[in-house]
Amino acid sequence: MGMESFLASGMPRLDQQLRFTAEIDKMTGILRRTLLVDHSRRENDAEHSWHIAVMAMLFEEYAIEKVNVGRVAEMCVVHDLVEIYAGDTFAYDVKGNEDKKAREQAAADKLFGQLPEEQGKMIRDLWEEFDAMETADAKYAACLDRLQPFLHNTLTGGHTWVEGGTDRTAVEKRMALIKEFMPEVYGWISANLDRAVENGWLKSLK
Amino acid sequence: MGMESFLASGMPRLDQQLRFTAEIDKMTGILRRTLLVDHSRRENDAEHSWHIAVMAMLFEEYAIEKVNVGRVAEMCVVHDLVEIYAGDTFAYDVKGNEDKKAREQAAADKLFGQLPEEQGKMIRDLWEEFDAMETADAKYAACLDRLQPFLHNTLTGGHTWVEGGTDRTAVEKRMALIKEFMPEVYGWISANLDRAVENGWLKSLK
Repeated sequence: MGMESFLASGMPRLDQQLRFTAEIDKMTGILRRTLLVDHSRRENDAEHSWHIAVMAMLFEEYAIEKVNVGRVAEMCVVHDLVEIYAGDTFAYDVKGNEDKKAREQAAADKLFGQLPEEQGKMIRDLWEEFDAMETADAKYAACLDRLQPFLHNTLTGGHTWVEGGTDRTAVEKRMALIKEFMPEVYGWISANLDRAVENGWLKSLK
Repeated sequence: MGMESFLASGMPRLDQQLRFTAEIDKMTGILRRTLLVDHSRRENDAEHSWHIAVMAMLFEEYAIEKVNVGRVAEMCVVHDLVEIYAGDTFAYDVKGNEDKKAREQAAADKLFGQLPEEQGKMIRDLWEEFDAMETADAKYAACLDRLQPFLHNTLTGGHTWVEGGTDRTAVEKRMALIKEFMPEVYGWISANLDRAVENGWLKSLK
């Protein structure tokens, strides 16, 4: 008996919701470049999404605009769902980021189309809001999405930076949103950028 | 240079928050009995917590009382944090559940004590509310915490039930909250309990 028959409840809407729940478990197999804090392996999208959702509950005080923490937690847990079909695009991969938008839009059509229409739209709207980085909630979520891998890199010998031959300027550019939206936290980032260059984890063109 | 020096921002509050963020990454190493949907390995607490937080956005319509989805998402991502120190206690492990409360209270003291006081209290309160299963938000989160492993078991040949020699009555007892709080969803559970017995995944004392 295949998966389909177990997910046939006799209620088509519930079936869609249960199947979608089973489908998104694939997030556990989408690997990011970032290592776990204990260096044991690369983290996956489910772990990363969970991690920044908890962070949403902790760093609100540093945001320069008022945010809705519960809503940001929701945004965090769905912000990378499209990667189930589009894959993870490394932040500092110039080529991979060229067609990222098209790949992710196609993935969103495929994934969110599996839900009852208004639920698919609700999650897609939240993801698009995140991606546009215009609202306070989206800016805050996007800051956490940058702060978390920065923290992991800092604690794992600059792992993804070293692997990618990354330049300090590229990281500074990606962290500019934190500088703008969570300036106090940027002080810590800036000091660790200095250390990362000193340690040879980041290249410096200067 | 150790972890401590990277997490010294010159702002003691921010240091605590960053250290706590690094500490809870240990959730990725707390393994549950449940397999991932693709059968590849056991899921961990970070993945499970993320999964039920997304489910909170999808199954609200079946709850018999009004819930605050954003708040439930927050509850979901922190509901198992104490397992970092207390470990995962299998739902159908009678012996392990005897001292669960004491182990988890000690773990909560240790873990939440690492945060600024009011933040530690905020997260602990949310966890205790979850654990007490009295409010609508807590009941809904607790239903999801039962529905998700039930779904995984259903899709992985009753993995944890077979491994534990579990009886149908024990699962019915654990699912009673869903019967009460999400009766429409319980119809699907009940049909799959029948199938699980037919397939020999669950013992039946009848």
